Amino acid sequence: MLTHIDLPTTEEEETRLRDYLEDVQPEDIAEYISNLDDRNEQIELIKLLEPDDAAIVFFELNDFSLVSDVLLSLPRWQAMAIAAEIPSDDAADLLADMEDNVRSRVLALFDDEARSDIIELLGYDEDTAGGLMTTEFVVVPAFVTAQKAIEMMRAFAPDAETIYYVYVIDGNSHLVGILSLRELIIAGPETAVADIMQTNVMSVNVHDDQEEVADLMTKYNFLAVPVVDDDEHIIGIITVDDIVDVIHAEATEDFYRMAGINEGEDDEEPTVKGAYLARMPWLLITICGELGSGIVLSGFQARLEQVVALAIFIPLLTGVAGNVGTQSSTVTVRGLAMGTLESGHTLRIVLRETCIGLALGVSVGLIVGGIGSLWQFPLLGLAVGLTLVLNNLMASFMGTVVPLTFKRINVDPAVASAPFITTVVDISGLLNYTLIAAAILNI
Amino acid sequence: MLTHIDLPTTEEEETRLRDYLEDVQPEDIAEYISNLDDRNEQIELIKLLEPDDAAIVFFELNDFSLVSDVLLSLPRWQAMAIAAEIPSDDAADLLADMEDNVRSRVLALFDDEARSDIIELLGYDEDTAGGLMTTEFVVVPAFVTAQKAIEMMRAFAPDAETIYYVYVIDGNSHLVGILSLRELIIAGPETAVADIMQTNVMSVNVHDDQEEVADLMTKYNFLAVPVVDDDEHIIGIITVDDIVDVIHAEATEDFYRMAGINEGEDDEEPTVKGAYLARMPWLLITICGELGSGIVLSGFQARLEQVVALAIFIPLLTGVAGNVGTQSSTVTVRGLAMGTLESGHTLRIVLRETCIGLALGVSVGLIVGGIGSLWQFPLLGLAVGLTLVLNNLMASFMGTVVPLTFKRINVDPAVASAPFITTVVDISGLLNYTLIAAAILNI
Repeated sequence: MLTHIDLPTTEEEETRLRDYLEDVQPEDIAEYISNLDDRNEQIELIKLLEPDDAAIVFFELNDFSLVSDVLLSLPRWQAMAIAAEIPSDDAADLLADMEDNVRSRVLALFDDEARSDIIELLGYDEDTAGGLMTTEFVVVPAFVTAQKAIEMMRAFAPDAETIYYVYVIDGNSHLVGILSLRELIIAGPETAVADIMQTNVMSVNVHDDQEEVADLMTKYNFLAVPVVDDDEHIIGIITVDDIVDVIHAEATEDFYRMAGINEGEDDEEPTVKGAYLARMPWLLITICGELGSGIVLSGFQARLEQVVALAIFIPLLTGVAGNVGTQSSTVTVRGLAMGTLESGHTLRIVLRETCIGLALGVSVGLIVGGIGSLWQFPLLGLAVGLTLVLNNLMASFMGTVVPLTFKRINVDPAVASAPFITTVVDISGLLNYTLIAAAILNI
Repeated sequence: MLTHIDLPTTEEEETRLRDYLEDVQPEDIAEYISNLDDRNEQIELIKLLEPDDAAIVFFELNDFSLVSDVLLSLPRWQAMAIAAEIPSDDAADLLADMEDNVRSRVLALFDDEARSDIIELLGYDEDTAGGLMTTEFVVVPAFVTAQKAIEMMRAFAPDAETIYYVYVIDGNSHLVGILSLRELIIAGPETAVADIMQTNVMSVNVHDDQEEVADLMTKYNFLAVPVVDDDEHIIGIITVDDIVDVIHAEATEDFYRMAGINEGEDDEEPTVKGAYLARMPWLLITICGELGSGIVLSGFQARLEQVVALAIFIPLLTGVAGNVGTQSSTVTVRGLAMGTLESGHTLRIVLRETCIGLALGVSVGLIVGGIGSLWQFPLLGLAVGLTLVLNNLMASFMGTVVPLTFKRINVDPAVASAPFITTVVDISGLLNYTLIAAAILNI
């Protein structure tokens, strides 16, 4: 790991630093640069890198203004050398947020082919297959031999991000087959590509959501998947290393949703204001819900005045039921996201979670009921114990049914988050408590 | 997707079904088989598959007893044909859970080389690099030419799981370099491997935890990483597609921990008993904590009797603070897991979250304080509002400091889960409420 680098002051120092940086992983350099506070120091350091390393650092830092600052302050030939090393999909991601006049100056540094690829890629939403794909891939016509295909790849290879699959097209540029490089290499040189290719090719549409693409590639263990337009022409590929980032991002999104945080905390260091805006909405919903809990309790106020010890168990009741509800909703939401729970088997899933909730409720009810009887008085212990059984049953039922229902009506199940479930369970749990306590204590 | 398959009764039907299944993705067949309730039907269907498809179905189903049932009931030659298609790392995972006598009978179906690989792999913990790696990879000595290296790969390729990197070794079998297949193909045929290889090779130790491996591969965007033993000999490789499953599994583990679920719900359809045992511990901790909340309230009982309306706001106070605490702990836990938060910058992270907590607290305090003043009486509204400001400040502080502290003392930060934070925040929040209310209402 890099700890500290002094910017060179003499040419000799500069040469030594360049040599040193060549042996460091560019991802580590990116990490070091991201921790620098001085913009100038960041720029100067990137200028010392080899073009291919600089391109990786740009990708890792994902900071479009740094890219334009560096590229537009370098001599043109040097900026073009770096631009040539940036894959068109990464370039499109970086250029997407630049202002128009900056973007066109940066675009001018790319060669014609790359520029037209980037402009095409800029047209796709970054959360779709189009936003994720690279346009650098290898296609061969179906009629060539394995030997010829390998030669075509040699010519393509310097540009292609991956040559781990070779895509086979017919005369109309339709995707008709796929070959792994391995199959091509072990085939006899004179074999026709059409004879060894697999014709059962799965592809994704350019407008598909990135999450669907990640799920497909995870399920079928693909190293790359071709992207086709609406006319089934192959226009790009998505490789598994791009999917790794999507999987992390989607998991983070679900974590945040489950915790009641809306979009907006993607960046490494979000502003306090951004975080405030992302978190406030669920707090407002919680307040509305918990005012409902308050209304339930205020309806019970006369009885609470008679037996104020009832209030002692309110935090325990809401805490335990919220916990059980969160457990059930987490298992359900994650199971739906991973595809291990199928929304078709609704009844079995709900039945199973309800059984678990009942088992947990009976155990917890016995324990707390016992403690309550000894600590306060037996009838209060009985009321608290019975309420816990009923509340846990209900919490696990809600924690399961709510996300399953959201899934059915095409709302993200992760919206059935901890705050949502907790609030719903609080209101209904306190209603149970007041009814059961009133009946048992005869107040 | 497969909807329904009837097992064939005539030879003609069998041939037709075999042809049909050949065109279906084996992952889809695995999904269909996993939903069958009849063991016999599962076995008969697998027997109809081509050996390579059967091997993928075995991997996908991850059901070791099905594997032994199928392999040991097939004619020996047919079972050996399937065994030959199972990569040694998958085979080791499947054989790990078999009983000794069954395992040795299944092992006998593999050829000598695969058998010794599998026996070696069985020696590694399945959560380590050794448990994840495959022993099928391509090594070439540093002194051969590019042409010769390609020829060696042609010979190796039918066995090697991936030939996307070629590993270069010296005379002592030490890993000295790495080459992508692409670099090999675009190099001149007579170039020595030593001249084109990259010498700065990152590797993982066979005993490294799978999470570390996944983090390393994610960070550096590797398609594969070599695994070395304690003497730096290369003994296997881990490919990015194996890492995708690790990433999903680790995220699921974190989701579960955050929701207060211990290990044990890995399987697709865990038993009610397993789920009960995984969830009960955190409920017990919640109960202990919330009994603490009860003790706080019972110390306040005499005052509650004077102003029973104080009880109305208890669920709102605990609900909101729990929510804020969960938001902060989720952002912190996820940030630590993703490496976007560095535990070195503790002060900045805590300060930032505390600012957010204060901002949220002031907003929420004003809203609820206002409502409380109008609904009940002004001094009660003031007490509730002030408590909310203090509680939210404290909840976001705890939600940040607790996981950071856990990280520092090498406890998984995800243990700072929603139930844990909620419980801690409930007790201290209620303590604040009683103190503030007593002071303001002068009771």
